[in-house]
Amino acid sequence: MSPSLLNRRSTPARSSTIRDLLDQARTPGMISFAGGIPDPDRFPLALLADLAAGVIRGQGNEALQYGATAGEAETKAALAGLYGPLPDGSCISSAELVVTSGAQQALDLTARVLLEPGDPVICATADYLGMLGVLNDHGAVPHPIPVDADGLDVERLEVELRGGLRPRACYLVPHHHNPTGATITPPRRAHLHRLSSRYGFVVIEDDPYRELTYDGSEPVEVAADPELTVRIRSTSKILSPGLRIGALAGPRWLTEAVTIQKQSADLHTSTLSQALVVAALGTGLLDEHVAGLRSSYQAKLDLLLGAIQDRFEDRIIVDRPGGGMFLWARFPGIDTSVWLSRAIDNGVCFVPGQAFAVGTDRSDQARLSFVTASPGDLVDGVDRLAQTAPVPTRLPRMLA
Amino acid sequence: MSPSLLNRRSTPARSSTIRDLLDQARTPGMISFAGGIPDPDRFPLALLADLAAGVIRGQGNEALQYGATAGEAETKAALAGLYGPLPDGSCISSAELVVTSGAQQALDLTARVLLEPGDPVICATADYLGMLGVLNDHGAVPHPIPVDADGLDVERLEVELRGGLRPRACYLVPHHHNPTGATITPPRRAHLHRLSSRYGFVVIEDDPYRELTYDGSEPVEVAADPELTVRIRSTSKILSPGLRIGALAGPRWLTEAVTIQKQSADLHTSTLSQALVVAALGTGLLDEHVAGLRSSYQAKLDLLLGAIQDRFEDRIIVDRPGGGMFLWARFPGIDTSVWLSRAIDNGVCFVPGQAFAVGTDRSDQARLSFVTASPGDLVDGVDRLAQTAPVPTRLPRMLA
Repeated sequence: MSPSLLNRRSTPARSSTIRDLLDQARTPGMISFAGGIPDPDRFPLALLADLAAGVIRGQGNEALQYGATAGEAETKAALAGLYGPLPDGSCISSAELVVTSGAQQALDLTARVLLEPGDPVICATADYLGMLGVLNDHGAVPHPIPVDADGLDVERLEVELRGGLRPRACYLVPHHHNPTGATITPPRRAHLHRLSSRYGFVVIEDDPYRELTYDGSEPVEVAADPELTVRIRSTSKILSPGLRIGALAGPRWLTEAVTIQKQSADLHTSTLSQALVVAALGTGLLDEHVAGLRSSYQAKLDLLLGAIQDRFEDRIIVDRPGGGMFLWARFPGIDTSVWLSRAIDNGVCFVPGQAFAVGTDRSDQARLSFVTASPGDLVDGVDRLAQTAPVPTRLPRMLA
Repeated sequence: MSPSLLNRRSTPARSSTIRDLLDQARTPGMISFAGGIPDPDRFPLALLADLAAGVIRGQGNEALQYGATAGEAETKAALAGLYGPLPDGSCISSAELVVTSGAQQALDLTARVLLEPGDPVICATADYLGMLGVLNDHGAVPHPIPVDADGLDVERLEVELRGGLRPRACYLVPHHHNPTGATITPPRRAHLHRLSSRYGFVVIEDDPYRELTYDGSEPVEVAADPELTVRIRSTSKILSPGLRIGALAGPRWLTEAVTIQKQSADLHTSTLSQALVVAALGTGLLDEHVAGLRSSYQAKLDLLLGAIQDRFEDRIIVDRPGGGMFLWARFPGIDTSVWLSRAIDNGVCFVPGQAFAVGTDRSDQARLSFVTASPGDLVDGVDRLAQTAPVPTRLPRMLA
């Protein structure tokens, strides 16, 4: 009887087949390209240990106490520094910020105040699972738009808007998108924001990989309607995901509503985590730390790309991502979900493209994370992949 | 235009008048009986500072990394220890637990999987604001039942159930209820659980004050339908609220649904906070620490009760709470909301009873927290209250 007490939205968004497979992959010796997690060997342990002890001894009366729902003033000031200057030269101010329990909570709270069941929300035809879960949980309907190496196909979106589509919001990872690795070009992104103004939908810019660029370019901001733009930042990829510190900046009508929902959701984000992030950002060491991450991750990307192109040659189609944590590869004629179960038996795992698919077939694609495994494991993992790759069931598309 | 993009539920549950008043009360020198926050002078700073540094240095690769949505195995094992044995001698196991970002998130996630808009949920006629906010945010309808010194009036609830009331859930703070201080008697509580089985509603037992008992009694558990009972625990009152570590135990159909929603809500609770709580509970020092809290808080309760009875004599009606953090007082003939603005001008604040009221008039009551202020401030605060108390506008009820 009891499960009938569950309400409608308590249904997972996706088949658990891939999740079940990946659960099996948690065995000793498994080489994982599956996780979307930072390299733990690069966490600044000694620095954070000293800072944590100092924060608790020195400010424990506040850092261990209940805090403000929207975040401590010091945290908001520190996190405002994660936002670059806007095209008009202005900067995001503390007053526009809400400190969240990771960027994931920023997505969920935004959905919580914006979305009604049935609302269409623009996303990419392969997109971040955490956001697809949020949309499902709030009864919203993901409306997929194709994505290529230049990011979301905004021309196509405009055609659909002209045709009558009226989304409540558009979800966008501007830099080094998970899973496709794409960075949207500034003209396309500016075009998207013009459409947001014209058609009255909110653009949710989720930007956790902006600091992880390997080609030397700087993250970009474009002109956007301040009343219709939500900008989300994270410290998970540049410092530590375990602290769960993210930030949401947006118009006052939205941040006030988000703060009220956050009060119910968890009262506030850990004050100890907040104080630790403030202390870490305050050391000025973060630039150097992130530079180290960039150079380590870039070297691993080069290693993985070299190994996979060497072993798969013309059986793989891949664009080199400009940053982030993921290689998005196509293996023409191969169903990567079928491949995964064979790969796991051979001690290697990845996430099949179909796991991220929205209204589109992504079954010949795969997401390979290149930041967590050691250099040796990256190369060994590609060997294990190659040993288990199925024979393509049809000709590669460019030859068909 | 933009605020029209907010969905229906983005409306605060309550008038913000009292909140606005209390915001004004954040001035230097203010003596506050308003907060529901532990005494920060009793946080075990040196212990936690050492533990935090040790945890980060020794286990930082895990304690700073992404973690499991339902919580780390070690955390679940440690938090299972916050649950006493059940009447049949069995104990709550780790498998029944979800680690939450404070008990508040446990309430929110439970509502998120159980409640549909319009669902009636049983609560007390004066109840915890955080839960009333959750009910509002999920569109549920609080259905108030009177509460007295023996807790919720379960006989009255049964009459309403016989009359056709069909609640989805009942919210209960079993020990030292916020704001009334009441502890429900074991027979009433057992009766409530029998009604839960008979009528098929979930009992949400939120028990953050169970360790803060001052009369030497032990917290009690009663027979309950395991498929219809959710038990929530918190480390906020016994260790530190800033760490945001709570726990939810319940039937598998509910904990699985809660875990899926938590994945969207914040991925997981801070792994550093979890590791720190595990380390603190593992020292075995917590019993001694909580004993110290109990004795300090009990002394403050005695001090406040003595001072307030001394200054208000027959103008106050109050039951001595058996534990917790709050004195719930009635000042017959006085509108405590009006009094509050005068009190703030005189450097003291509290929360008027009407702030907690559900479908009932609580305007002559007030909640006074006795744990945060220093002993000297407790006495001075009562003086400031007495100086500003309005003249009763009608005879006290027992004389009317």
